[in-house]
Amino acid sequence: MDSFMQAAIEQARQGLEQGGVPIGSVLVHDGRIIGRGHNQRQQRGSAVLHGEMDALENAGRQPASVYRESVLYTTLSPCAMCSGAILLYGIPRVVVGENRTFLGEEALLRERGVSVEVLDDATCRELMASFIDAHPEVWNEDIGES
Amino acid sequence: MDSFMQAAIEQARQGLEQGGVPIGSVLVHDGRIIGRGHNQRQQRGSAVLHGEMDALENAGRQPASVYRESVLYTTLSPCAMCSGAILLYGIPRVVVGENRTFLGEEALLRERGVSVEVLDDATCRELMASFIDAHPEVWNEDIGES
Repeated sequence: MDSFMQAAIEQARQGLEQGGVPIGSVLVHDGRIIGRGHNQRQQRGSAVLHGEMDALENAGRQPASVYRESVLYTTLSPCAMCSGAILLYGIPRVVVGENRTFLGEEALLRERGVSVEVLDDATCRELMASFIDAHPEVWNEDIGES
Repeated sequence: MDSFMQAAIEQARQGLEQGGVPIGSVLVHDGRIIGRGHNQRQQRGSAVLHGEMDALENAGRQPASVYRESVLYTTLSPCAMCSGAILLYGIPRVVVGENRTFLGEEALLRERGVSVEVLDDATCRELMASFIDAHPEVWNEDIGES
């Protein structure tokens, strides 16, 4: 597997070990990871730090020229908020671990010219399926469903 | 003026006094402000805490039922990221101070059924126009333009 998706999965696993929603993400620029993150709902009581947002935040302030040459790797299909962040910063490419347990705004991203590749990775699916089964209320809160 | 937009403007002014981008927001549920925030790019080096996101974060974890009965007040038209957060949580109504200095994703929000009211408020416009004039590079970074 791509080492960047492996790094995103490692982030998801860190989140799980902390008792959190197992979604991880890395932002890659010029072949180097410049931000790593994972969902922080449980750990930090955060409503905005999804995995992708946490990776963007941990990358720190970057000029537009960096975002526009970056690739965002995320273990799960990006929700409306994370997709909006991708559009805001003009990130041209997103690699998604899986979109079976949750399908985000991939159609909107593609419509706006973002390249979205879905790996349908079994590890990513299993991480989410197990968590949703064990903690459906946390997951539904995370996607604004309950 | 609506006291909630006044509270959002107060947040924008606090941000300005801290040397930050003067955009403020409040999340209102059941006639009560449950989260206040302002852009934190300069103050906290944040790439994700726009005013609206900071207000959502400061409101803390909320059930979907709360978001779905809430109104988000923001001094400036919400960008793609903040609009995505509004869609994620199903916030049904957004009151915008102005959209002349920056037009966000109002069309997308309306297309998805969100009620968007634009006040075209002179104070909100003046706060942004002065800041953009004085710090164009910070502003362009904030909207992913440079």
